[in-house]
Amino acid sequence: MTNPTAAMLVIGDEILSGRTRDANMHYLANELTKHGITLKEARVVSDDRDAIVAAVNDLRAAFDTVFTSGGIGPTHDDITADCIAAAFGVGIDIRDDARALLAAHYAKTGAEFNAARQRMARIPDGATLIDNPISVAPGFTIGNVHVMAGVPNIFQAMVASVLPTLTGGDPLLSQTLRINCGEGEIAGPLSDLAADFPDLSIGSYPFQRDGAYGSNIVIRGTDAGRIDAAMTHLCDRFAGAL
Amino acid sequence: MTNPTAAMLVIGDEILSGRTRDANMHYLANELTKHGITLKEARVVSDDRDAIVAAVNDLRAAFDTVFTSGGIGPTHDDITADCIAAAFGVGIDIRDDARALLAAHYAKTGAEFNAARQRMARIPDGATLIDNPISVAPGFTIGNVHVMAGVPNIFQAMVASVLPTLTGGDPLLSQTLRINCGEGEIAGPLSDLAADFPDLSIGSYPFQRDGAYGSNIVIRGTDAGRIDAAMTHLCDRFAGAL
Repeated sequence: MTNPTAAMLVIGDEILSGRTRDANMHYLANELTKHGITLKEARVVSDDRDAIVAAVNDLRAAFDTVFTSGGIGPTHDDITADCIAAAFGVGIDIRDDARALLAAHYAKTGAEFNAARQRMARIPDGATLIDNPISVAPGFTIGNVHVMAGVPNIFQAMVASVLPTLTGGDPLLSQTLRINCGEGEIAGPLSDLAADFPDLSIGSYPFQRDGAYGSNIVIRGTDAGRIDAAMTHLCDRFAGAL
Repeated sequence: MTNPTAAMLVIGDEILSGRTRDANMHYLANELTKHGITLKEARVVSDDRDAIVAAVNDLRAAFDTVFTSGGIGPTHDDITADCIAAAFGVGIDIRDDARALLAAHYAKTGAEFNAARQRMARIPDGATLIDNPISVAPGFTIGNVHVMAGVPNIFQAMVASVLPTLTGGDPLLSQTLRINCGEGEIAGPLSDLAADFPDLSIGSYPFQRDGAYGSNIVIRGTDAGRIDAAMTHLCDRFAGAL
């Protein structure tokens, strides 16, 4: 069985200007791997309507599931919900259930439920809400696209709500072997190993430490027995460099 | 004047599986901002030929300059150079000048200049080499695409070689103001400010600390005087929450 595929779309000028270092992609990558969903592509685009609409439509056509992060707050640069509606060709307006969630929240905190905050209740027609246990303003799912906040702890809470609703495949397992010689020594035998185990993914991640070269070899797959077998070959082959 | 645009393509399964957290995108974003080049999009794709070729061709058509990282080492999963040649529709083979660089390096270190290491001298026809002061194996530039290593210190050294060859625009300047109230309070006045200063980019990056909400407002542009003027407005408006 081939695992389901996913893509991530990170929305926000602050990542592309270097002001903020994105943390959500790495988090989502790990969660999807555990859940048996293969993250095939990630994109970062700026707060630009055309760029967001085009990326959403590209990715939702190419992959089973798309996750977005960022741009669903109350400020003028939060345009994700409107862009998603445009990408799907559906309407968008303040929705009663989302509005009620927010109204109750602000009644409790005493903050004014003003026009800017009401923007966070704008939900594309036909979407379902994603719970936000941190700051209430919901994300939403429309078609195969899950639209989530960019603030990392809220993003993570929303991923935790969405993931159990998705059909995962076999979790991707991996084993790593550190080999203390340069990638150029390892490359030939590794290529042979990859040919002998076409069902596994075998990666080599070189490093240089204290002037010496080495590489971490990562063997990934869904069958623990096959990974063990490949790892045994590798250990035998490089017994002198472990 | 509009600043030149750029995109980045990160190539590697290890980022998408969550094993490795990409560091190069954040580094490049900062360097480009300083150099007056606007990073408009970043993509991460896996070690998959079709995905790499398609992304390279999309991005080089859409933006002034493209930077890639990853996949130019000696192992079987290093397929970037071949994919770039395919994307440009040119041939690729071991090139004498690249081979000579590597041969001299391995002669000095005493390591065997074997077939795997010779693969690192495969350069698409018509490309120019990018110097690698760390581990010698070169990157290359073809058309508007700069192909660089994924190992962060090598990537950074290659960026340092390439950037001075590119025409930059006005460096993007920014000022940040921390406002200690929720984004919902800030959003209305901020939207007015954005309308009054259409030449500036005004972003709001909310945070929550010790149970209190706040937001960092970042004003970006190329004219220091205009940024000062907008920042003065903002300080006056939120004098009570600074």
